[in-house]
Amino acid sequence: MSPIRGYVFDAYGTLFDVHSVVDAGRAVTPDPATLSATWRQKQLEYTWLRSLMGTYVDFWAVTESALRYTMRRLGLSASETELRRLMEAYLSLAPFPEVPGALARLAGRPRAVLSNGAPSMLAAAVASSGLAAHLEHVISVDAVRTYKPSPRVYALGPGTLGIPAGELLFVSSNGWDVAGAKAFGYRVAWCNRTDAPEEELGVRADVVVRTLDQLPR
Amino acid sequence: MSPIRGYVFDAYGTLFDVHSVVDAGRAVTPDPATLSATWRQKQLEYTWLRSLMGTYVDFWAVTESALRYTMRRLGLSASETELRRLMEAYLSLAPFPEVPGALARLAGRPRAVLSNGAPSMLAAAVASSGLAAHLEHVISVDAVRTYKPSPRVYALGPGTLGIPAGELLFVSSNGWDVAGAKAFGYRVAWCNRTDAPEEELGVRADVVVRTLDQLPR
Repeated sequence: MSPIRGYVFDAYGTLFDVHSVVDAGRAVTPDPATLSATWRQKQLEYTWLRSLMGTYVDFWAVTESALRYTMRRLGLSASETELRRLMEAYLSLAPFPEVPGALARLAGRPRAVLSNGAPSMLAAAVASSGLAAHLEHVISVDAVRTYKPSPRVYALGPGTLGIPAGELLFVSSNGWDVAGAKAFGYRVAWCNRTDAPEEELGVRADVVVRTLDQLPR
Repeated sequence: MSPIRGYVFDAYGTLFDVHSVVDAGRAVTPDPATLSATWRQKQLEYTWLRSLMGTYVDFWAVTESALRYTMRRLGLSASETELRRLMEAYLSLAPFPEVPGALARLAGRPRAVLSNGAPSMLAAAVASSGLAAHLEHVISVDAVRTYKPSPRVYALGPGTLGIPAGELLFVSSNGWDVAGAKAFGYRVAWCNRTDAPEEELGVRADVVVRTLDQLPR
């Protein structure tokens, strides 16, 4: 098998710990874990639905819509200022503890982020997490105005790095993202941080790791 | 506004009560409601993900994959015979109580089903529910090998009935399906049986009813 010539990482949940979103939720509910989980699920649903409907809006807009739905669904109320603070949690995320070291260890081959996030959201998260020095490329789906797992999104990796997908290792903590990247043609590592069950989408990761410091070089 | 010249109905949850799926779950878990809800959510996710990935398999296969994932996720085990029985619950569904009368009242204009269901699943459910006499067309997404809310699916309604979408009333209990049909160009009634919050997808139903006997003629 040909060697790995570059790395393409999912952002939210893979490099960036979105736990601070849960923390921010404490301002509006005694059960911020349910708020965060419902918000995240609806955020993903809206990316899939809008991609299929052909009515793209960027990830900031999707995230805000999902938050408004979630508040109503959970019977919560909040001021516009409180909602803004919840949204802003996405702009200042910490990396998972092992991530800076793991990325540093892979230096010498191009390391890219390929994320649903809007360009301004990714720029803010990369800066606040201190990962900028470890990433040669930050790629947003916004360039093609659709979301993962569309093949048009995954094509941005080889297109930007100038390396075929079969010689790139795509890394994601999201099982459905793993399936999309594998179906496209990447070599894929599933970073299964939460011991989640494997998705039943007809394809499998090439390797499963628990944290990013276990990635093959 | 031009008069309504025909009706296009979603199937599962709109015409057909999937409660018998919950009943069937009692054989493998003391909490069949959680099994049913998780299974349904994953079934929908897999239709969206496979549509975006371009890896269509029919709704019977999607439903079985979603069931296998759900069993693993919930830590449940079942024999292949028990799984088969759970799947077969989809083949013998009852209509919601008001549905036969509501459809009969709309006679004189074409009444169609437009569903994610595989043709054999829809044929079985239409027969077992006794609704065949009230439906002029039963249309499956299988004809275009993708799922709702793709515009290619919604185009099957006008294409089959020979009536523009703007003169058809699309009826669904699923908020995201309502959004997809509205974005395509139908007039849309949301049958909000469960008092669900409205989705935040940038479009709204023309009318909201609680049950199908409240539909405008």
